[in-house]
Amino acid sequence: MKKSVFYHAGCPVCVSAEHDILELIGEQNVEIVHFGNNKSRIPEAEKAGVKSVPALVTPNGNVLHINYGASMADVKA
Amino acid sequence: MKKSVFYHAGCPVCVSAEHDILELIGEQNVEIVHFGNNKSRIPEAEKAGVKSVPALVTPNGNVLHINYGASMADVKA
Repeated sequence: MKKSVFYHAGCPVCVSAEHDILELIGEQNVEIVHFGNNKSRIPEAEKAGVKSVPALVTPNGNVLHINYGASMADVKA
Repeated sequence: MKKSVFYHAGCPVCVSAEHDILELIGEQNVEIVHFGNNKSRIPEAEKAGVKSVPALVTPNGNVLHINYGASMADVKA
């Protein structure tokens, strides 16, 4: 199975959601991308339709915005 | 494992998220509650902290608001 990708920026809401998602979906099924450590992945996330973090992009390309930590504008600031 | 509960109200955003969540977490791990068919579950969801639908309440009681279909006020209207 293709992995989901969980994008976040280290905010408290992100970290809490990351924990829940890993628990629910299984660590082996999710790639975690932290924009703080990896700004080069921002364009790919925006292209996928990520508007805020935390967000999960499913293997079929749907974007699930989970709660609300920060907008992509905040992430890029 | 205790099941997660996915609350929704039949909106297009809800149905799309439901499909993704079932795919990711597995049908056997999620109880689906449709407020349109089951208004009696609204108080329980609000008590859990659900502010909008679709939302997933995890086995440990965290609420993940996934995208945004409708507020609970809309659901109750």
